[in-house]
Amino acid sequence: SVDTTPITATLFPGDGIGPEIADSVKQVFRAADVPIEWEEHYVGTEVDPRTQSFLTWESLESVRRNRVGLKGPMATPIGKGHRSLNLTLRKELNLYANVRPCYSLPGYKTRYDNVDLITIRENTEGEYSGLEHQVVRGVVESLKIITRHASLRVAEYAFHYAKAHGRERVSAIHKANIMQKTDGLFLKCCREVAGKYPEIKYEEVVIDNCCMMLVKNPALFDVLVMPNLYGDIISDLCAGLIGGLGLTPSCNIGEGGIALAEAVHGSAPDIAGKNLANPTALMLSAITMLRHLELHGKADRIQNAILNTIAEGKYRTADLGGTSTTTDFTEAIIDHL
Amino acid sequence: SVDTTPITATLFPGDGIGPEIADSVKQVFRAADVPIEWEEHYVGTEVDPRTQSFLTWESLESVRRNRVGLKGPMATPIGKGHRSLNLTLRKELNLYANVRPCYSLPGYKTRYDNVDLITIRENTEGEYSGLEHQVVRGVVESLKIITRHASLRVAEYAFHYAKAHGRERVSAIHKANIMQKTDGLFLKCCREVAGKYPEIKYEEVVIDNCCMMLVKNPALFDVLVMPNLYGDIISDLCAGLIGGLGLTPSCNIGEGGIALAEAVHGSAPDIAGKNLANPTALMLSAITMLRHLELHGKADRIQNAILNTIAEGKYRTADLGGTSTTTDFTEAIIDHL
Ligand SMILES: CC(C)[C@H](C(=O)O)[C@@H](O)C(=O)O
Ligand SMILES: CC(C)[C@H](C(=O)O)[C@@H](O)C(=O)O
Repeated sequence: SVDTTPITATLFPGDGIGPEIADSVKQVFRAADVPIEWEEHYVGTEVDPRTQSFLTWESLESVRRNRVGLKGPMATPIGKGHRSLNLTLRKELNLYANVRPCYSLPGYKTRYDNVDLITIRENTEGEYSGLEHQVVRGVVESLKIITRHASLRVAEYAFHYAKAHGRERVSAIHKANIMQKTDGLFLKCCREVAGKYPEIKYEEVVIDNCCMMLVKNPALFDVLVMPNLYGDIISDLCAGLIGGLGLTPSCNIGEGGIALAEAVHGSAPDIAGKNLANPTALMLSAITMLRHLELHGKADRIQNAILNTIAEGKYRTADLGGTSTTTDFTEAIIDHL
Repeated sequence: SVDTTPITATLFPGDGIGPEIADSVKQVFRAADVPIEWEEHYVGTEVDPRTQSFLTWESLESVRRNRVGLKGPMATPIGKGHRSLNLTLRKELNLYANVRPCYSLPGYKTRYDNVDLITIRENTEGEYSGLEHQVVRGVVESLKIITRHASLRVAEYAFHYAKAHGRERVSAIHKANIMQKTDGLFLKCCREVAGKYPEIKYEEVVIDNCCMMLVKNPALFDVLVMPNLYGDIISDLCAGLIGGLGLTPSCNIGEGGIALAEAVHGSAPDIAGKNLANPTALMLSAITMLRHLELHGKADRIQNAILNTIAEGKYRTADLGGTSTTTDFTEAIIDHL
């Protein structure tokens, strides 16, 4: 079967709790006989004093070669002139779409039931251009850049995703009533792509109204596609609906079929090395990587084991109100496989 | 007592359901002996064919002279080159701070209890500069402008408000990790002002994290101050927590002590003239105007009557799941005075 072809995937465990939760993923994948060989590279701020490299050339090459990878949390290097490593990776690997599935975990109660949302965020431009100037003393400006190229690309990905995953509707989120040119261009591109997918419903929703409706009734939405900053905001809002960033997977899609899955929570230096971290977000992210590779059998099996472990409620880490160690929780998942 | 000095206030009933809900406010104010004389002007899209004016000079002068006013919803004129009337009013009257108190209405159940948030939004610049260009075909940019002047002004207002209303904490919401210059300047100004209010706690929260935390636990926040677009987004999110824009008041503060209260919901043309509209947001907005005038006795009396009517649940308009007319609901409030 397809599921047994060996595949090499890059692994960046990252900083803080990164190595521990990456270890959990490796154990669970091994136990589930996932045909993946990890090619591990260190990217992060706990740097080798000889090279002083936060991000080696070899790490980037590894993702470019393998086309699939998984990354843990990375702290931002301290000191002037350092960019966040997340942003550097997005830029260097041209990771143009950030996909965050967000669904209620059975048995883990929040104020919302049956959340099932996919946010697809343009990941390369918009408010993240880095172009800022002081016009005169006391007057500064930031440039938001929207291009037809990047907007079409992420819109294509969103509709392709919606179709491939049997989703009904794509909502483009914008503020084109104010930013008529930039968000206007984004919408124009979404409309063009929507025209090629008559089987998928398409709508446009202003960001302020979208946030209000998400909070009132998340079931109104399905797949959401939007410019960079709105994606940053709305994907975190959606994560909040189901319990937070410790539970939500994320996958970055790049040109040439690259998929770099990542846990979007922080590196939690306060609990690092204490066997207390919750590996759920990284594991669910690893599953989005499996789905990208069309290893749906393995993906389903592991996902069910994770969801069942959380639903059972016997083994939960401290962030979910439990007292389990990372090891206990990981072993419980393996038992559920 | 202070409560009996007659005061002239401007009233813009607005479009659609505007006149009906403005009528409710007038009735309730009359019943409560509020010492206000309304100076009514029409601003909106249902224009006088002779003047073709959406916004007369006299209307602006009325607010400038009276310093206090109340506005209903206004539709945006259709056709190229028309700005939203809301934006024009903000600009012409230099309405630099938009204040939206957002609290749970007793007896009106949502997923959240005991919400009590104040969002204070910079209302004149940021992403709303209107400066946009096409750089080359397929590449457009919008300028976000942040000034020291406007940032200090809104920060001053936020801390002043927090102190005057006995609030504990001000959170500045930003994305300075990405927009270091613009949001960085905004934060710098907030910090400067915070230094003058040692009795008020001050913190800085990144917008994505803020949205996640608001959805998980709104009690973490108190007064929030932020640049224009973040204020647009977060104030709607907060409104969603307690039931939507039909229930949340808003007041715009301008230079020279101007206060223009407004209902931020739409003009609902589909139900206009049918005696079905919910006047709550406009009434609660009118109350923020009374508080601005330090008519706290009248403000408390009317606010309690509104809250008690909603809590009792016997008279509710359709948007709150009831079957009452605007008239029934208004009379019920008057009975509760
Ligand atoms: C850490 C920060 C730069 C980053 C972003 O703003 O994109 C984060 O919030 C995210 O969503 O990955
Ligand atoms: C109608 C629109 C221009 C306006 C805004 O974006 O400010 C509205 O959303 C508001 O919050 O008053």
